Amino acid sequence: MDKLRLMTPGPTMVPPQVLAAMAGPMHHHRTAEHRRIFREVTDQLRYVFGTSGDCLVITGSGTAAMEAAIVGVGGPGNKALVFDGGKFGRRWAKVCAVYGIAHVVCELEWGTGAKAAMVEEHLRRDPAIDTVIVTHSETSTAAVSDLEGIAAVTRSRGAVLVVDGITSVGALPVKMDEWGVDVAVTGSQKALMTPPGLGIVAVSPRAWERIESFSSTSLYLCLKAYRKALATDDSPYTPAITLMMGLRAALELIRAEGIERVWSRTACLARATRAAVQAMNLRVFARDPADSLTAVMVPEGFDETALRRRLRERFGIVVAGGQDQLKGRVFRVNHMGYVDEVDALGLIGALELVLAEMRHAFPPGAGLAAAVESLAGA
Amino acid sequence: MDKLRLMTPGPTMVPPQVLAAMAGPMHHHRTAEHRRIFREVTDQLRYVFGTSGDCLVITGSGTAAMEAAIVGVGGPGNKALVFDGGKFGRRWAKVCAVYGIAHVVCELEWGTGAKAAMVEEHLRRDPAIDTVIVTHSETSTAAVSDLEGIAAVTRSRGAVLVVDGITSVGALPVKMDEWGVDVAVTGSQKALMTPPGLGIVAVSPRAWERIESFSSTSLYLCLKAYRKALATDDSPYTPAITLMMGLRAALELIRAEGIERVWSRTACLARATRAAVQAMNLRVFARDPADSLTAVMVPEGFDETALRRRLRERFGIVVAGGQDQLKGRVFRVNHMGYVDEVDALGLIGALELVLAEMRHAFPPGAGLAAAVESLAGA
Repeated sequence: MDKLRLMTPGPTMVPPQVLAAMAGPMHHHRTAEHRRIFREVTDQLRYVFGTSGDCLVITGSGTAAMEAAIVGVGGPGNKALVFDGGKFGRRWAKVCAVYGIAHVVCELEWGTGAKAAMVEEHLRRDPAIDTVIVTHSETSTAAVSDLEGIAAVTRSRGAVLVVDGITSVGALPVKMDEWGVDVAVTGSQKALMTPPGLGIVAVSPRAWERIESFSSTSLYLCLKAYRKALATDDSPYTPAITLMMGLRAALELIRAEGIERVWSRTACLARATRAAVQAMNLRVFARDPADSLTAVMVPEGFDETALRRRLRERFGIVVAGGQDQLKGRVFRVNHMGYVDEVDALGLIGALELVLAEMRHAFPPGAGLAAAVESLAGA
Repeated sequence: MDKLRLMTPGPTMVPPQVLAAMAGPMHHHRTAEHRRIFREVTDQLRYVFGTSGDCLVITGSGTAAMEAAIVGVGGPGNKALVFDGGKFGRRWAKVCAVYGIAHVVCELEWGTGAKAAMVEEHLRRDPAIDTVIVTHSETSTAAVSDLEGIAAVTRSRGAVLVVDGITSVGALPVKMDEWGVDVAVTGSQKALMTPPGLGIVAVSPRAWERIESFSSTSLYLCLKAYRKALATDDSPYTPAITLMMGLRAALELIRAEGIERVWSRTACLARATRAAVQAMNLRVFARDPADSLTAVMVPEGFDETALRRRLRERFGIVVAGGQDQLKGRVFRVNHMGYVDEVDALGLIGALELVLAEMRHAFPPGAGLAAAVESLAGA
């Protein structure tokens, strides 16, 4: 028997209700049926993002959605501050470069997040900066930024805040309207428990003012076209109908559980996992660890690829390796979406068995004991 | 019972084998499993496009894929000739405008296709034109262009030919390498019998020379990134995994039937449908009708919306209305993909019943008789 357990930080496991919803008969998107699906999806997305603003659904990856957001707010007269603390932050700086958007890059030590004071300092030093691009949870390092604090600064300074929430929205607390986040982006395949293929961009009225003030330099990724179509519960281009059907089912699950409970479940799993790996004499990579995923360091000289292969072959568990400079140095475990205490304990148990086989030294049972203790206290 | 019969020219009906393939357990895309799927999909796409060149799969609509193609070949020194004979041809001119790509538009009468002589004439008159953008089958008017003849001209003149094959590839004969087509584009939701969400761009070596010669002005839609990832059977950004699983199943069905037989089946259904509607005293809109779909004109003053509503409510049949200036004047019927003689006859029978109810004058049974005669002769 090969029972696959996808524990990567996206794509994440898809609930059977979502798989079933996607296998229904194909319908056409310019019909009342689809408009109803579309309306339900966008309503539920507002709940998840904590906003009464527009939630636009783009057929594409999370990168497509972030590109649309950045190009949308990055006009000829604007200047952006981009935080680069990993593979994804780096990508958003690249988007600015490709489109010729004026920007400065603030490099973060990998494993740390952006802080409010850094934003404050940059805005003070360079008054031309009117846009801040921050990755809430950096998927490559599993580090979190202080989104609430940063939003307080950008709001008071009048800068537009664009947030990569790809591994945060629906997993970590994000309260767009309450905190004053202007644009937030996510993808379907993370906390939203749907297969990859949809990028979502939530836009505040303040961000729309900026976006509407200049001509777009992209057609497919022009947010204005999505906004116009939204008025009639429609998409400007043919949407990924099955994924929309799946997303509706997934959002119903989130609504039924309640978003605060989803956040606290995710945080509990993250805490238990961090406690467990430390009890197994492994280290958590991030100094500012995100609760949506954990990057676990392997000891110097340890064969990280063999560890993942054994987890896959013996237990059907798939975790992610490191990216770029972290390749071979960390593996990454998901806490977002359709994952619960039993899944987390199963992974830790399997890790114990594989690490023991690979002669990594730690007290047998210590990981599971630490995890159980953490979960019991939660 | 509400048995839905999707007869729109995209999205088209999805075979149960494809729906089942998409409902399998979610896997990760940076794994050997996914690379195998990826490789099989791109190999089968080469067969369908008639090319030994690269077939790139972009998560996005057909518009995203065409935008990537146009931006890919439209460098600072290039000039394009764009044929505009409907809603989609017009859109490709708009892409040129948004990206500042030098271009001239050749307007076609709606319902007619581009001809080789027109291309010849434009290239002769304006030697700066080095790129030709043509819509093989214009979905809004159901008209076909002479792709083979046009390719012969662009090949001999050294111009790069970019083809919107969204409602042609996999339905009408397209032989990229044999004819000399440089770039051809399609979407998953037409002849490829897969839900919407994937755009495909096939690129010849000659087109790559052009594309590689300048910097891209888009990140997500930069074909170079997809080419680089293709070398390891990978995507630059998270792919729409379930749709790839579905597309693999659909391409296996096409391979098993044989692409020439798919083309001739499609042509037979188109001929039978045209014969039937004419026998029912209706007219086919296009003067150069494509075999992938048919646009049927309704008589002056006839309520086209009511006709579609009756087809939907009484028979579960969904056909498409007209777009832009053809709204209310035509309805459009699909012949691509998972549709056979029984489906076509069923639609014609339902049309007879509804037209009679709506007091349109025609000899009862004439549509079905004409269709049967056409199919018998095929």
